[in-house]
Amino acid sequence: MPNHVYKTIELTGSSPKGLEEAIRNAVAKASQTLHNLRWFQVTETRGEIEKGKVAHWQVTMKVGFTLD
Amino acid sequence: MPNHVYKTIELTGSSPKGLEEAIRNAVAKASQTLHNLRWFQVTETRGEIEKGKVAHWQVTMKVGFTLD
Amino acid sequence: MPNHVYKTIELTGSSPKGLEEAIRNAVAKASQTLHNLRWFQVTETRGEIEKGKVAHWQVTMKVGFTLD
Amino acid sequence: MPNHVYKTIELTGSSPKGLEEAIRNAVAKASQTLHNLRWFQVTETRGEIEKGKVAHWQVTMKVGFTLD
Amino acid sequence: MPNHVYKTIELTGSSPKGLEEAIRNAVAKASQTLHNLRWFQVTETRGEIEKGKVAHWQVTMKVGFTLD
Amino acid sequence: MPNHVYKTIELTGSSPKGLEEAIRNAVAKASQTLHNLRWFQVTETRGEIEKGKVAHWQVTMKVGFTLD
Amino acid sequence: MPNHVYKTIELTGSSPKGLEEAIRNAVAKASQTLHNLRWFQVTETRGEIEKGKVAHWQVTMKVGFTLD
Amino acid sequence: MPNHVYKTIELTGSSPKGLEEAIRNAVAKASQTLHNLRWFQVTETRGEIEKGKVAHWQVTMKVGFTLD
Amino acid sequence: MPNHVYKTIELTGSSPKGLEEAIRNAVAKASQTLHNLRWFQVTETRGEIEKGKVAHWQVTMKVGFTLD
Amino acid sequence: MPNHVYKTIELTGSSPKGLEEAIRNAVAKASQTLHNLRWFQVTETRGEIEKGKVAHWQVTMKVGFTLD
Amino acid sequence: MPNHVYKTIELTGSSPKGLEEAIRNAVAKASQTLHNLRWFQVTETRGEIEKGKVAHWQVTMKVGFTLD
Amino acid sequence: MPNHVYKTIELTGSSPKGLEEAIRNAVAKASQTLHNLRWFQVTETRGEIEKGKVAHWQVTMKVGFTLD
Repeated sequence: MPNHVYKTIELTGSSPKGLEEAIRNAVAKASQTLHNLRWFQVTETRGEIEKGKVAHWQVTMKVGFTLD
Repeated sequence: MPNHVYKTIELTGSSPKGLEEAIRNAVAKASQTLHNLRWFQVTETRGEIEKGKVAHWQVTMKVGFTLD
Repeated sequence: MPNHVYKTIELTGSSPKGLEEAIRNAVAKASQTLHNLRWFQVTETRGEIEKGKVAHWQVTMKVGFTLD
Repeated sequence: MPNHVYKTIELTGSSPKGLEEAIRNAVAKASQTLHNLRWFQVTETRGEIEKGKVAHWQVTMKVGFTLD
Repeated sequence: MPNHVYKTIELTGSSPKGLEEAIRNAVAKASQTLHNLRWFQVTETRGEIEKGKVAHWQVTMKVGFTLD
Repeated sequence: MPNHVYKTIELTGSSPKGLEEAIRNAVAKASQTLHNLRWFQVTETRGEIEKGKVAHWQVTMKVGFTLD
Repeated sequence: MPNHVYKTIELTGSSPKGLEEAIRNAVAKASQTLHNLRWFQVTETRGEIEKGKVAHWQVTMKVGFTLD
Repeated sequence: MPNHVYKTIELTGSSPKGLEEAIRNAVAKASQTLHNLRWFQVTETRGEIEKGKVAHWQVTMKVGFTLD
Repeated sequence: MPNHVYKTIELTGSSPKGLEEAIRNAVAKASQTLHNLRWFQVTETRGEIEKGKVAHWQVTMKVGFTLD
Repeated sequence: MPNHVYKTIELTGSSPKGLEEAIRNAVAKASQTLHNLRWFQVTETRGEIEKGKVAHWQVTMKVGFTLD
Repeated sequence: MPNHVYKTIELTGSSPKGLEEAIRNAVAKASQTLHNLRWFQVTETRGEIEKGKVAHWQVTMKVGFTLD
Repeated sequence: MPNHVYKTIELTGSSPKGLEEAIRNAVAKASQTLHNLRWFQVTETRGEIEKGKVAHWQVTMKVGFTLD
């Protein structure tokens, strides 16, 4: 392992289905422009409530990737 | 958007099925008496273990609603 | 309830399937050697990303048990 | 000072004008139904941005009052 | 254990005698109107000083109870 | 609301006038290159002191925007 | 002082009498198997409420000891 | 820049006018006896409420200065 | 209430007897040189263990006083 | 000092030699594309262990720079 | 990568030489009895002062290893 | 050990050489006027960057000493 340098960005994914789907949506979006994604770390879990039910799940996460 | 004021309360939902079900149970309970629920934010995720298995999932969350 | 004393250890479970499976894996592993597991509390939720997708879910948690 | 007991609730005030106005709005709203308000403590300062400008200031705060 | 939902409120008890008395005072006050109190968790320990001595002990705590 | 993904960046605005002006300056700067700014959250409030007076107010904040 | 290495474990003591008794119970339990206990640090103070009164005091603490 | 050493003290300023005035009052007070004040960092924002209105704004801050 | 400015210092009191005695010792020591002590806030509770028993209780606290 | 706006990014540097080398590596990498680097702040210090020895030191840090 | 489970313990290493040596001492001690050490994370950096100089550097860290 | 009372102050040391030198500089400065320094605890590690390189290392730390 050479002296890698990593950068971390903060994203929030959302989904009407659940927490893991919200995370997967954010990772999928980030992978469209960043090709060295390595890990994520959840920093906040929220959701929107409409008519007494959870309408959207929202997960904020740090996503790390290797700087070439 | 007028000058809304929101109140936040803290609830813990539980479920033998999983984390999202625990959240949904707490939201459903709160919506019986509060009709302006707007969002939730998870503050703690726990569970009870019985006979070496997760018996109950418990999620503590802040729930925000509009004060009329 | 007598004057119980509890000990807490920190474990990280992993799973390619999801967050709850990662928690269950860690609880199952701990229950092989500890017979008084009582509760867990999640302290960190992470994951590894490979080829733009979540490859492994990793949940770090405190697990409490009764000291005999 | 007798053995007072205080209760703390969490409110979020909003205002298009600024941070202090958002706090004053939440205090004014709470004082309509609670007559022993004693102090507040800011826990979060946020705002909404529309068309590149701050459209609403939002201040979340704990508000303490004496239980009779 | 069915799918209980718990609510947590934040109280501050005070006492000229000591920390545990301050906690007991808050629990006693809360139990006058809430009949399902289950646990408390201390979040802050303070006190007022008068003439170079501790005049009042003040303990802030979360108090949890079952929602019927 | 489709499955939006949001990105959060951290900015520090400064102003000789006051806290809100420092926030507005950072939002104005960010809006020159980012057209979907949605919210900000203050994470630190500081200032520089010169000759015994506050010379510059500095507010660090997270700023969130929609990823197209 | 040579280059000592210390290990820290997390324990929760309980007592119907009070906070210090809960701490002493945990230290006494740990000292049955660990002979180099050096210090403790409280990380959480809780209690169980039964019939409107504090039934058990529970103190979670880190306990440090010298590795031989 | 030589190898400066800085000291930080914690002050709380108060004002009936607003948050910035409370900060300015604390800085002005400190500058009467300390001549190398360099920066401040807000650590808590509170206020006292009287008759349903904010009567005093109170800002706690760390203030740093150069040790000669 | 005029525009008071308060200063906060951090002290650690110790006692072989218990937590409250440790706090009282620190307040007594500080009041020998500071005559406007107003409040304290506990920030850490520790202790030293000797021969498997708590030998000294140590409480770290912020102590606030009025600047004349 | 005009009304500068600063941006902060989060980087992780690594090195087999030590902590300061890990920091220097991350700063050197960032300075290849950003020409106004002003400060860094360490947020996490970790390392990888291989065969019972520290194989890589990893330092995560916020790095701030001036937005032109 | 199968569904590994990791355990984390907390150690404090000390050294008269410096911070990295304190970390290396703790890792070396732990590797005498644990053969799957994988990573460490620093949680506290302290030291003892004697005669106005740093006499011992003390680093507290979490150390993670694979459970077989 | 009698009932010692300790005071903690917060200092920031700086050095162009490295982190440990910055700590040693602050301890040396404090020991010129305080003769009972006992321990330090690092609370923040920062640095200034000039021309793409670390120009000054800055370590903020609490320093404790015995009150006579």
